[in-house]
Amino acid sequence: MAKRGETRARLLSTAATLFRTQGYHATGLNQVVEEGRVPKGSLYFHFPGGKEQLAVESVALAAGEVRASLRAVDDLDGVLELFAEHLVESDFRRGCPVATVALDAAGESERIRAACASAYASWSEVLVEFLVRQGVAVDRAPGLATTVLAAVEGALLLTKTRRDVAPLRQVAADLRVLIEGAM
Amino acid sequence: MAKRGETRARLLSTAATLFRTQGYHATGLNQVVEEGRVPKGSLYFHFPGGKEQLAVESVALAAGEVRASLRAVDDLDGVLELFAEHLVESDFRRGCPVATVALDAAGESERIRAACASAYASWSEVLVEFLVRQGVAVDRAPGLATTVLAAVEGALLLTKTRRDVAPLRQVAADLRVLIEGAM
Repeated sequence: MAKRGETRARLLSTAATLFRTQGYHATGLNQVVEEGRVPKGSLYFHFPGGKEQLAVESVALAAGEVRASLRAVDDLDGVLELFAEHLVESDFRRGCPVATVALDAAGESERIRAACASAYASWSEVLVEFLVRQGVAVDRAPGLATTVLAAVEGALLLTKTRRDVAPLRQVAADLRVLIEGAM
Repeated sequence: MAKRGETRARLLSTAATLFRTQGYHATGLNQVVEEGRVPKGSLYFHFPGGKEQLAVESVALAAGEVRASLRAVDDLDGVLELFAEHLVESDFRRGCPVATVALDAAGESERIRAACASAYASWSEVLVEFLVRQGVAVDRAPGLATTVLAAVEGALLLTKTRRDVAPLRQVAADLRVLIEGAM
């Protein structure tokens, strides 16, 4: 039984990396099976819903990982530095694990869209808690969390496109100003 | 000759819309030819570089259009309202005309990546001019323009994913605070 769970986990993490780096449409199931080094038949055994199910579960997996990172650090700079490291280490391929799928697949699959929206909602929730801990008023925190999330997502997009972490650093500095002003 | 120019323009605008709504990989050349209602042979006649060339030119076309919109309005809210309208009218399919291609194709094509980076650089330039006109110091404007661009890009992503313009409105309000603080 352990083996079976391992195969499923390997399929999922391979798919998550591919979706993150190249999006939903560029990712073929054959590529997932080959790069995951699992028997071809195991994919539909573990994911009878095929690529759509893989995408929904990959987004949920990544959402949980990012949520845990967000909870673990006590300042926003730490989170942004973590993202900057991922990008540099992967030769600017690994940006936000949700954004590429959200943009290239959420328009055609309501299940994928809902998974992406849930991921963003769960991150916002952690950001609200963080902002309140920093001293931002409870009624101001949800709106500010949306702006923080948007700015970080945009910075990840610009950093990946420019192949330069400067946008992440700049956004971190300006968000600090915005958050301090709201305390 | 007018006819030939028309065919090329129709191919390009059809491709630009498809790339914008579904990304690079989901867009097939057959779909571009069918939706553009042009003869199949015309695609390689006008775009011998195929899909990559179409993507590079589509991004450049969209970049010029957004740049013109940015120049035409005198406040950021106007630009964000324009994007909100595009999203609502298209049932949340048309977000940023560059972001989807930047995320799903820039990692594999240096030409596409460079076209996306140029688009963002040209918008930043207009934002810097706008911020300086608003009274932001010349040495502060480029950094702030990066943050404004990032926040708007992220807001477009969240709006498309949530199918709700609230993130665009929220980001507009917070950017106003940030810009006023920098004047």
